[in-house]
Amino acid sequence: MEEIRLVPSMFIGVDGGNIISFGSGQPDLPPPKEIFEIVPRFNGFKYGLIQGNANLRETLATQYRGSDENNFVITNGASEALDLTFRTLGNGGGGKVLVHRPYYYSYPPIIEAAGLEPVFTETVDGKIDIDDFHEKVNDCKAVLINSPGNPTGSIQDINTLKEIENVTEDLGIVLISDEVYKDLIYERENYLLRGPHVVTVNSFSKTFAMCGFRVGFLYSNDRSIVDNVIGLKTHTSMNTNILAQEMAYTAANASRDYVDGQLRIWRERRDLICEGLEDLGLDFWKPEGAFYVLPKMKDPAKAVWNLFKRYDVITYLGDWFGAPDRIRLSYALNTDKIEEGLNRIKRYLDE
Amino acid sequence: MEEIRLVPSMFIGVDGGNIISFGSGQPDLPPPKEIFEIVPRFNGFKYGLIQGNANLRETLATQYRGSDENNFVITNGASEALDLTFRTLGNGGGGKVLVHRPYYYSYPPIIEAAGLEPVFTETVDGKIDIDDFHEKVNDCKAVLINSPGNPTGSIQDINTLKEIENVTEDLGIVLISDEVYKDLIYERENYLLRGPHVVTVNSFSKTFAMCGFRVGFLYSNDRSIVDNVIGLKTHTSMNTNILAQEMAYTAANASRDYVDGQLRIWRERRDLICEGLEDLGLDFWKPEGAFYVLPKMKDPAKAVWNLFKRYDVITYLGDWFGAPDRIRLSYALNTDKIEEGLNRIKRYLDE
Repeated sequence: MEEIRLVPSMFIGVDGGNIISFGSGQPDLPPPKEIFEIVPRFNGFKYGLIQGNANLRETLATQYRGSDENNFVITNGASEALDLTFRTLGNGGGGKVLVHRPYYYSYPPIIEAAGLEPVFTETVDGKIDIDDFHEKVNDCKAVLINSPGNPTGSIQDINTLKEIENVTEDLGIVLISDEVYKDLIYERENYLLRGPHVVTVNSFSKTFAMCGFRVGFLYSNDRSIVDNVIGLKTHTSMNTNILAQEMAYTAANASRDYVDGQLRIWRERRDLICEGLEDLGLDFWKPEGAFYVLPKMKDPAKAVWNLFKRYDVITYLGDWFGAPDRIRLSYALNTDKIEEGLNRIKRYLDE
Repeated sequence: MEEIRLVPSMFIGVDGGNIISFGSGQPDLPPPKEIFEIVPRFNGFKYGLIQGNANLRETLATQYRGSDENNFVITNGASEALDLTFRTLGNGGGGKVLVHRPYYYSYPPIIEAAGLEPVFTETVDGKIDIDDFHEKVNDCKAVLINSPGNPTGSIQDINTLKEIENVTEDLGIVLISDEVYKDLIYERENYLLRGPHVVTVNSFSKTFAMCGFRVGFLYSNDRSIVDNVIGLKTHTSMNTNILAQEMAYTAANASRDYVDGQLRIWRERRDLICEGLEDLGLDFWKPEGAFYVLPKMKDPAKAVWNLFKRYDVITYLGDWFGAPDRIRLSYALNTDKIEEGLNRIKRYLDE
């Protein structure tokens, strides 16, 4: 193997030609058509409110019982929502943040960049081990939950989530719930974490296929968290793109049929890739949500590199996600490409 | 005076009705019309490159001699360019950043949020005192220059800028040049800082009236700085809005007439407000660039609050900018409004 350090930014935005990308986690199907229809009439250009456009926040408030538009901040994707939340929590004082492993690869660096320390609770077949969680949660400043999760596709058990909700509230620990995949589930309704100590993070990227427009938000009933985030964002990026917020507002008010239609397609793809991976004899957890699968792989770094260089197939290294014996495949691509990608993986494995 | 803590976010995005806003520093004239013309044809929605769209970076590279597209990162406004630069410089290790006072109000909080310490060099009538600069620069990790400057409208002397360029290079100190007003100057050509140790920060907000779209960039010949910024942005906000980048690309390729036409209007407004402030007997430095003026004011907090509450006039508190005996007026509004605003300030002063 050539000596090269594999990092996610090598692959983000890389596509076209003969490449089959199981890499970046983004829908390939277009957003609701209405978001482009509003665009020609748009003529704003000035700064918007740092907190975000009022109409978008009011729409979000109708989706979260007990909230109002003042509980929301619109951000440059869920990434910035997480970054601002951790930066205001850290605020020079340090502290630990409990994360379940395998985790989205940005979590540790975001947490560390905020001067906080990520600590990890183990999972069994992608599910949080509540005993291990109890052991580790006591001296934490915050807990971060991601269900459905990237890269596992796992949904955490309702009883586990409720227990985490209660334990963190009793201990006075901030509970951050990254719910960007909440509308992409195959098995059952997800349980959405709630409470005065909860910071909900979400985005329009996955549900509405708007990754490139970078609109996310955070929601909290704790107004001091909201105010601190607004205070920091005033200096670090100001308002989120005003046109993208109007597009997000339009998407949020688009027909529910859009989301239901997407979900049928995702389920078909999931079933196809699971079948294919089984045929290849790979060991994986069947995804219950999102659009990722995380099979075990012999010498994963070699596999990721050779699949890319020799078969034009992008996959992500499990090690980036705290799963060193696996690789991650995003199945956000059409069935023809999934089949072709699986064929190429078969050829690699047959070598 | 009512007990209230005045902060910039109270006024950002506040406008309409009877309000005359000398507050937020943003053009009121529209961007080049071409940026809206491209929009209806736009159909992208996927993640873009973290570093930014290649066509936009290639265009920027033609504007900076000796650069190529790899020397640029496109960001959510100049704010994020500064934030990412300071965060990667700080990186948990601390250090001092030398800033000339009065300064843009976001500088100290951005520097502090990166775990760095802002230290201040004094100015005389808005100009850097090079002796004071020499005294303070030695133990700094970075120097931040803003010429033309917010809130002073001052352009720093060419000899001063060249000396700063040399001193920082000799000492191995990173020199950050915030040049967002470089195209808005009335008196003479500005001198743009250059060198292997320079990080240039700019945006499309002021030159092209695109504040709300949040497109900025950083440029450095030091590829390690560029790579570190890309690495951090991968986790904290990912790509800058893909549509806004296309709009910025279009603006950058629009006719130079646009910028020249804007400048004629800015100069007229500057002359009008300077005449008015002189008539009011206020003490101020005549702006050489940008669109701010910073008059001395008796009891500035009382003035800002009463002008807002009783005269519907927004001004900014000099204290936010390290100029506690002054208020800042942005003259980014039409001549009728400038005259009406000056009338209201006169009524306030006559009380």
